[in-house]
Amino acid sequence: MDLQFLGTSAGVPTKARNVSATAVIEASGRRWYLVDCGEGTQHRLLHSPLSLRDLSGIFITHVHGDHCFGLPGLLASAGVSGRSEPLDLVLPAALHEWLRLSLTASDSYLPFELRLHALEGFCGWRNAVLQVETVQLSHRVPSVGYMFSELNPEPRLDIPRLEADGVARGPLWGELARGQNVVHEGRTLQAADYLRASRPPRRVIVCGDNDRPELLAEVARDVDVLVHEATFTEPVVARSGLTWGHSTAAQVARFAEMAGVRNLVLTHFSARYPSLESIAQEARAHYRGNLTLARDLQRYHLDRDGCLVAAQT
Amino acid sequence: MDLQFLGTSAGVPTKARNVSATAVIEASGRRWYLVDCGEGTQHRLLHSPLSLRDLSGIFITHVHGDHCFGLPGLLASAGVSGRSEPLDLVLPAALHEWLRLSLTASDSYLPFELRLHALEGFCGWRNAVLQVETVQLSHRVPSVGYMFSELNPEPRLDIPRLEADGVARGPLWGELARGQNVVHEGRTLQAADYLRASRPPRRVIVCGDNDRPELLAEVARDVDVLVHEATFTEPVVARSGLTWGHSTAAQVARFAEMAGVRNLVLTHFSARYPSLESIAQEARAHYRGNLTLARDLQRYHLDRDGCLVAAQT
Repeated sequence: MDLQFLGTSAGVPTKARNVSATAVIEASGRRWYLVDCGEGTQHRLLHSPLSLRDLSGIFITHVHGDHCFGLPGLLASAGVSGRSEPLDLVLPAALHEWLRLSLTASDSYLPFELRLHALEGFCGWRNAVLQVETVQLSHRVPSVGYMFSELNPEPRLDIPRLEADGVARGPLWGELARGQNVVHEGRTLQAADYLRASRPPRRVIVCGDNDRPELLAEVARDVDVLVHEATFTEPVVARSGLTWGHSTAAQVARFAEMAGVRNLVLTHFSARYPSLESIAQEARAHYRGNLTLARDLQRYHLDRDGCLVAAQT
Repeated sequence: MDLQFLGTSAGVPTKARNVSATAVIEASGRRWYLVDCGEGTQHRLLHSPLSLRDLSGIFITHVHGDHCFGLPGLLASAGVSGRSEPLDLVLPAALHEWLRLSLTASDSYLPFELRLHALEGFCGWRNAVLQVETVQLSHRVPSVGYMFSELNPEPRLDIPRLEADGVARGPLWGELARGQNVVHEGRTLQAADYLRASRPPRRVIVCGDNDRPELLAEVARDVDVLVHEATFTEPVVARSGLTWGHSTAAQVARFAEMAGVRNLVLTHFSARYPSLESIAQEARAHYRGNLTLARDLQRYHLDRDGCLVAAQT
């Protein structure tokens, strides 16, 4: 399971950082999921190995433009790329009509089915490989985090059960191992009944804007990676007296330390920080785990030991 | 009068070229005007000397997304930049509701007045320095070109008239020269009555998508610079049989040669041309004037002799 950051700036783009978008990539390395889609996300993708044909779902955390204004252009370009597979898109209901109008008013035609799901009342999403659930956060507008959990990772045959059911070693085992149902002595055997995960599922949560990290106390225990905004540092908020519904690096780091988060990734940095050194220092003062300050286009790999490491690019 | 290209790609961005946006910059070098605003235009501006505070008008040629999807983000960022001056925006009526919804649904607040004008029935726009008029073009949807003409460029005192009216050389001349009305022998003299352009006005037309360059026959005689799309080359259209409402380089070049256009700038190149050499060759075979293939972020200066030259960057 990999992460690739397509935008790590808050509110407005800078020369080095685009507005919010994060790719979550399946262990297979091909199919991927997009959390938020600020303006220019499709431009960032041109500099990544990710293809709009392999995009398996889009998840928008909240209505602010720096998290969604890239949707119309990205969808139109997915159409131009020849995508034909349906695409699931979870976003706040307030954006549904806007998105439809973006496409119709601009005379854009999508050659694939766009399946819009309202974030409000969203009960989770899953395919064969992973499931996505939400955590409510606190911001100027309703905001969520999306938790991605692998389902049945690296499945192996459950040999004791096969033997108990009298299925002898042979070609049927191979078919079941590949996920195919088989007929044995006139009875259909479901592959899912004979496959077991060979390791614990990896879990990653990518959060929208949030000024109360403690809302993540429950899920933080379960996730391998917490991706959270750190828009400001404490001195800046102390001077302005304003957080605009955002967190400081110290606030997130203290929470992550207390909750025992193993890998903390900070992102969504205010454009006032051309260098991120002050943010890094503030976070390190409160958090002793594996700290990462996300960088645009950098890819990170969550290895089998649950450690997040920067990938070679 | 300068031009700076912020996007020269057709339909989708490439690594080197963004989608459509062109800045027309006043001779003063500060205030500027934007024709079209594809997604990522605000990102391109970060790499130019142009400021959203000095933007004096936006003119959208047609409804297609690669010409307008950058508007919501650009306007929101203009707000963040602290702009307070009203902003005129001319765009097809079909986009008005979309733009309003983009701002309201995303909870964006603009600290300046946004004055929306419908392109349909648009009767021209002017300020003290220039006027903007439209020419109807031909595309899959209604499309226009915007012609920018300087008004009264580099005004000088009309000394014969001052003398004829008995206004003796003195401090009043200086005030009139600076555009201030003055009182002379109990009568108010309007500065505009005593100022004359010291050179012919420069004119530039920036066209939207168009498959019939001949529609520009009348205005082409008056302009110093014609900026026109050249989405395809002839061999590509011959193979596909499809123009999608666009022009080939040869088609535009032949027209410009026949119309005596002095400076022809081609832009809006299909992403299928990573190198523009075939487009340049095709155009040069039919046009003997000053040919330019626009390059993203390149600035061009229209000098006093009416010649367009690439500016040092």
